[in-house]
Amino acid sequence: MASKKIGKATVKFTNPPIIAGTGTIVGPMEGRGPLAKDIDVILPDLTFGEKTGERSERKLLEQAAQIAIERSGIDKGMIDYYIAGDLLNQIISASFSARQLAIPFIGVYGACSTCSMGTTLGGMIIDGGFADYVLVACSSHYQTAERQFRYPIELNIQHKATSQYTVTGAGALVLASSGNGPRVTWATTGRVIDLGVKDPYNLGAAMAPAACDTLLRHVADTGCAPDMYDLILTGDLGSLGSQLFAELAKDAGCNVGNNYNDCGLMIFDTKTQRVGSGASGCACAAVVTFGHVLKEMERGNLKKILLIATGALLSPLSFQQGESIPGVGHAIVIEL
Amino acid sequence: MASKKIGKATVKFTNPPIIAGTGTIVGPMEGRGPLAKDIDVILPDLTFGEKTGERSERKLLEQAAQIAIERSGIDKGMIDYYIAGDLLNQIISASFSARQLAIPFIGVYGACSTCSMGTTLGGMIIDGGFADYVLVACSSHYQTAERQFRYPIELNIQHKATSQYTVTGAGALVLASSGNGPRVTWATTGRVIDLGVKDPYNLGAAMAPAACDTLLRHVADTGCAPDMYDLILTGDLGSLGSQLFAELAKDAGCNVGNNYNDCGLMIFDTKTQRVGSGASGCACAAVVTFGHVLKEMERGNLKKILLIATGALLSPLSFQQGESIPGVGHAIVIEL
Repeated sequence: MASKKIGKATVKFTNPPIIAGTGTIVGPMEGRGPLAKDIDVILPDLTFGEKTGERSERKLLEQAAQIAIERSGIDKGMIDYYIAGDLLNQIISASFSARQLAIPFIGVYGACSTCSMGTTLGGMIIDGGFADYVLVACSSHYQTAERQFRYPIELNIQHKATSQYTVTGAGALVLASSGNGPRVTWATTGRVIDLGVKDPYNLGAAMAPAACDTLLRHVADTGCAPDMYDLILTGDLGSLGSQLFAELAKDAGCNVGNNYNDCGLMIFDTKTQRVGSGASGCACAAVVTFGHVLKEMERGNLKKILLIATGALLSPLSFQQGESIPGVGHAIVIEL
Repeated sequence: MASKKIGKATVKFTNPPIIAGTGTIVGPMEGRGPLAKDIDVILPDLTFGEKTGERSERKLLEQAAQIAIERSGIDKGMIDYYIAGDLLNQIISASFSARQLAIPFIGVYGACSTCSMGTTLGGMIIDGGFADYVLVACSSHYQTAERQFRYPIELNIQHKATSQYTVTGAGALVLASSGNGPRVTWATTGRVIDLGVKDPYNLGAAMAPAACDTLLRHVADTGCAPDMYDLILTGDLGSLGSQLFAELAKDAGCNVGNNYNDCGLMIFDTKTQRVGSGASGCACAAVVTFGHVLKEMERGNLKKILLIATGALLSPLSFQQGESIPGVGHAIVIEL
């Protein structure tokens, strides 16, 4: 029997990977949100000096990675693996940033769940004794996501109340096999769940059941009840999805209380910033967790948190072909 | 220092994962090729009874996974992780098959290098003590790939001499922490290399430098010279790309000899089957390796092989925006 396997697809790290450095960067709208002070770089505009949104997004990812490497205090050449993903077709932001970084590359796709899936893999690679340093990163960009998944922004299509607003930004962290800092102690990998939601303007509802499935499995496997965490975060369920998540969990006998929040409700001021049901995008959970939450841990306000980053695994083509929207949620525990 | 890390991004598995079962399935054209006898299922047509190519491809993946699970002799419920990827936007074949399989899911994107990247990750998860069984799979489909990356087949666009023909098929394997069977003993993860090739009809040339970079790093890290392998396989470089690969390796002082072949030259009869420079697609390296090569090992004709599956990390959009084509190659060693 595998020694670090607890239950099914839950891992207890025996030599927990240390978060040695983080880097976060966002666009101007996120910079006007309530978490701005905890984010490393806030851009004055969405272009980042590039001609296309895709090039801007790639630069966001490279910049976040660069900051995380600098903060970790290690030389880029010491990093064994670069694990990255994004929302774009063929994850071109990640692949092209890997060309620039020249670190052996593992490309992943988990939609907006990428940051916790990447961190889980990075943790396994380090705890398994295969690497000393792993860089994990992901990105999203409002304009590239709108153009690819919905309509070019030039068409000025009206958003719906249940729509979510893609975060422009990137988050990166360097995991290390030794040193000081918060540690990734547990991980629960998500199953793909689909209860038949077909509305691509209501992704929170599509992802909530998967997030709940992962929470229940995590709690059962670890024996750690929801009230034992200072903070439980879902990735980007938004206002509707996070309500559904809490209700589904309650129905299953697992109450999440005041210690529960959703990254999609934190990065923008949802009352004044007109972002529909909240924020989304790979960068949403990454920036909130790698930026804000880890700084709250540094400040001594949080000691142990559970992140369940969530992904909606649709494509424009699967929607056009009448498919429903599968969701997934990957959980990681970070503690001091 | 990490215990199983040799050099940079090369891994020596100390408890090498066992290949407990494989499953392969292909379309009719592959079924007329020289490796047909080693493939588990050959379909009479490309539809597999489905209305769209995308649904057919998903079914190929599910079927290959099913066969691999059956062959491994273990219950589906025992499998801890499902690692899968494909060429389609947002890897919908993999994600939707994960919904069907209901095994905790790690989605990866490495284009045609997916089979060795997934096997490397699966090997790390098992050797790291995180799982007892991991299912790895990938797929491609001629029609879905043509439509997405090039033109709908209904337009009957003429192929170029350097074009490659996407394999319709899927390959899957079950890795186990114990038991009998061939073992995955080493892995070298690739760096993304881009020497400026911009022609999407010549992907072999775009990927050859990355495959060579991985070979050189693998040989340096393991001390295992090319002539110590019974077979060295590249993923899908085709006739032009595999010549370039051999020349680049030779120039770097690393001769690959008669023990070298390319999966893209093996699955079709390139003289009679009109497939341009050869075969490509995630399923190419997967079906050749998980089907033919492992059966050759069973028959006692091969004892130790090196697979460097290769991926071209472009998207139609990156091409339209004038970008060159980054390549990657991931190496695994399989031995009896």
